[in-house]
Amino acid sequence: MKKSSPSLRWTGRLGLSAVLIVLSSAAAGPAFTAAQSPAVKRPYADAAESMRGDGLRAEGAYAILERLTRLAPSRLTGSPGFAEAQELMRRELESLGLSTWREPVRVEHWVRGKIQEALLLDGAEPPRALRIAALGLSVPTPAEGIEAPLIEIRSFDELRKAGNRVKGSIVFFNHPMDRTMQESFAAYGEAAQYRSRGPAEAAKSGAIAVLIRSMTQRLDGFPHTGMTAYDPAAPKIPAAALATLDAEDLSRRLAARPGLRLRLKLDCRDLGLTESSNLAGEIRGSEHPEEIVLLGAHLDAWELGTGAHDDGAGCAQCLEAIRLIRDLGLAPKRTIRVVLYPNEEFGASAGRDYAQAPRRSSERHLAAIESDRGGFLPIGFGLGSAASFEKLKKWEGLLRPAGIQWVGPGGGGADIGPLGESGTALLAFIPDAQRYFDHHHSGNDVLAAVNPREIELGAVVMAIMALVIAQEGI
Amino acid sequence: MKKSSPSLRWTGRLGLSAVLIVLSSAAAGPAFTAAQSPAVKRPYADAAESMRGDGLRAEGAYAILERLTRLAPSRLTGSPGFAEAQELMRRELESLGLSTWREPVRVEHWVRGKIQEALLLDGAEPPRALRIAALGLSVPTPAEGIEAPLIEIRSFDELRKAGNRVKGSIVFFNHPMDRTMQESFAAYGEAAQYRSRGPAEAAKSGAIAVLIRSMTQRLDGFPHTGMTAYDPAAPKIPAAALATLDAEDLSRRLAARPGLRLRLKLDCRDLGLTESSNLAGEIRGSEHPEEIVLLGAHLDAWELGTGAHDDGAGCAQCLEAIRLIRDLGLAPKRTIRVVLYPNEEFGASAGRDYAQAPRRSSERHLAAIESDRGGFLPIGFGLGSAASFEKLKKWEGLLRPAGIQWVGPGGGGADIGPLGESGTALLAFIPDAQRYFDHHHSGNDVLAAVNPREIELGAVVMAIMALVIAQEGI
Repeated sequence: MKKSSPSLRWTGRLGLSAVLIVLSSAAAGPAFTAAQSPAVKRPYADAAESMRGDGLRAEGAYAILERLTRLAPSRLTGSPGFAEAQELMRRELESLGLSTWREPVRVEHWVRGKIQEALLLDGAEPPRALRIAALGLSVPTPAEGIEAPLIEIRSFDELRKAGNRVKGSIVFFNHPMDRTMQESFAAYGEAAQYRSRGPAEAAKSGAIAVLIRSMTQRLDGFPHTGMTAYDPAAPKIPAAALATLDAEDLSRRLAARPGLRLRLKLDCRDLGLTESSNLAGEIRGSEHPEEIVLLGAHLDAWELGTGAHDDGAGCAQCLEAIRLIRDLGLAPKRTIRVVLYPNEEFGASAGRDYAQAPRRSSERHLAAIESDRGGFLPIGFGLGSAASFEKLKKWEGLLRPAGIQWVGPGGGGADIGPLGESGTALLAFIPDAQRYFDHHHSGNDVLAAVNPREIELGAVVMAIMALVIAQEGI
Repeated sequence: MKKSSPSLRWTGRLGLSAVLIVLSSAAAGPAFTAAQSPAVKRPYADAAESMRGDGLRAEGAYAILERLTRLAPSRLTGSPGFAEAQELMRRELESLGLSTWREPVRVEHWVRGKIQEALLLDGAEPPRALRIAALGLSVPTPAEGIEAPLIEIRSFDELRKAGNRVKGSIVFFNHPMDRTMQESFAAYGEAAQYRSRGPAEAAKSGAIAVLIRSMTQRLDGFPHTGMTAYDPAAPKIPAAALATLDAEDLSRRLAARPGLRLRLKLDCRDLGLTESSNLAGEIRGSEHPEEIVLLGAHLDAWELGTGAHDDGAGCAQCLEAIRLIRDLGLAPKRTIRVVLYPNEEFGASAGRDYAQAPRRSSERHLAAIESDRGGFLPIGFGLGSAASFEKLKKWEGLLRPAGIQWVGPGGGGADIGPLGESGTALLAFIPDAQRYFDHHHSGNDVLAAVNPREIELGAVVMAIMALVIAQEGI
């Protein structure tokens, strides 16, 4: 190792004072061996340390997220707010000295409307308002609303068994997220099918509307929304998420007095597809500009909160990661590109569009790193394909001082996924998710729920990973 | 491994339904091998899984902490509030069916008083109130306060160089915690010497009072207090912590107009030593009752907030850990004991007293696990002595499903430390600490800063570790 020449080529550009340390260490000649991994070349360890110090000092990811959530708090895909958010991010990328461009895509244009009312009609007392939010893509009710008896259903199995009793009723899917699982995403995956498939399945059984218990491990007053997927073989019926506290209360009331009626009124609208675009910005590679390392996140967000964790944090981390690399003052061999997608919350079509865009034919995406699990404490990096695993594993030691515990199997991401078909190594940045579903898709997904150090460490490890791949390939 | 008999002896006591699963699995005969570690016996994996499920479902640690911070929010050592908190914890332990007792110790009795005023006198504008909190053990000012020019000092080196200029002044130690370190505790250790030694060192140079920049990585309006240690060789001068936002502002003002004066008024009092006690409760071992696995935390807390993370969380985790073990319905071979100490914030004398108490002569403490780093996401277990490391490392696989990333070197704890002298294996429960110093020793250390799943996972891994040592020794 002693005679290997430094793999980083430094430009004359001056960044922070930390860069000077890196420069002098690189200039000193021999590449030392880092303590934590014999394979890690000293210039990388220096660059990683420099970016960690710079990042934790500047807390730049939090600052970007603060601007995004303050200046563009409402950015549902297809909305004017989304376009404003995209323009803000374009300016942020340009302010870093990056060239940017947009690639047109078509996205959903669904609007929540102004009316989301669910009144529980209990003869014993005055009507009781439940805290709901329409599911994405839900059809509206008639203007006068609908009224029908509620039926509580805990699983698809129970739905089948309920048979004819469902007909003409409003189905209340009360399937809680499993709190006992340490892996919150696994519990979410299991429960979320009631949101995605529930309304369609209930419609097949003759239900006229659906309430879904919100997907969160907390008992709180926030409805947690999300997209539902209708089935062409069944009528589209109105569907809304119900706050978990209200779900618990409703369940108790229905147990005491079965057949309680609900009046539901929604004026949301599915306006079909509209024009939008992927936004990209990059540091062009000095030796292999056509070879690309992509950092990706989605810019659209549910507008009940400000999308701070989902996925404002991911966007802020992509921008901060490329800022950290830029401020090292070096010229990466390969291109490092940030892509911010619309429409993830409606099925991640923009990620497919990106992978299939004409411009891709002259490019080769070596690796793509997605951040879409919130701005929490970094834990690991998951890699989708086994092919590049050994090479990546070698760099684990570079990431440890920034808190990464492992590089392991399990990569991918909704937006970068389609790149995998042409051989791109797909990396998922994995933060801890104990708190994620306290906020996800709800009015509680706000800046106050984000810790500046946690989100920054994510940006730092993404920057380290992107830099190493840009220099060493994969 | 197939023929090894289960190491857990189950009593007829019925806990949660999850226990039945464990029972039936244990009754099935052969001990299976857990996937994650070939050395892990199946009954332990079952018990660990059962406690994880029970814990995450019940979120009992958070519930205990909620009661503690609501019913005994102010529990500075030696205060009436501390006695109330201890009585509350005693009742909680008894409600678990544990026998409890107290062991008398002597503790500091320092009171903050009612007056904490720091007025910056700037001829150009009206006096400006700074946000301060007296340091623990600080002497008061005279009733009329003191007034003197401020001098900003950034390091002990600067203090030495300042020489005579310090004489008669109020020293403002403006030494920030290093934000660039990933390890928050390391940054704290470096900066906290200005709180512990700063007033004594400044007094030696002739200062008449001291303000310390608070120990936190945040810029906020909370003074973060903590104990200072006077030097018998120097006068005791009044000392207070200053909120970081005010420290930044003060620094700018002093740069513009050196020699600005401060008027400081504190009526805190050091009332000397008073009576208190360690509180203990235990599940007595069925085979080796004299051999003990200790779970420890300190019950005293700075009273600016409610001591939710420091160290209410640790107390709640100790109680919840022993509750989880109890509800398994088994009879551990060795004694599992909870000890809650007073006076940690004034030097951890009660831990020394515990180690030296007469009762210890008939006991043998195999291991002690301390939780005093906040109720955050569990990351690892540090072990103080190398002797038992291989044995503990073997059980890592049991802890992984609850989120533990490593069992490694670096154990101990302020209160359990003295037990190490007689050969006790000292284990530090290590949660992540990115957010810890946002709250530590300040009015911001409140229940709202604690996540129910994060604190619970800590209780779960402590329970697993304690159970295995109680059964297998160390």
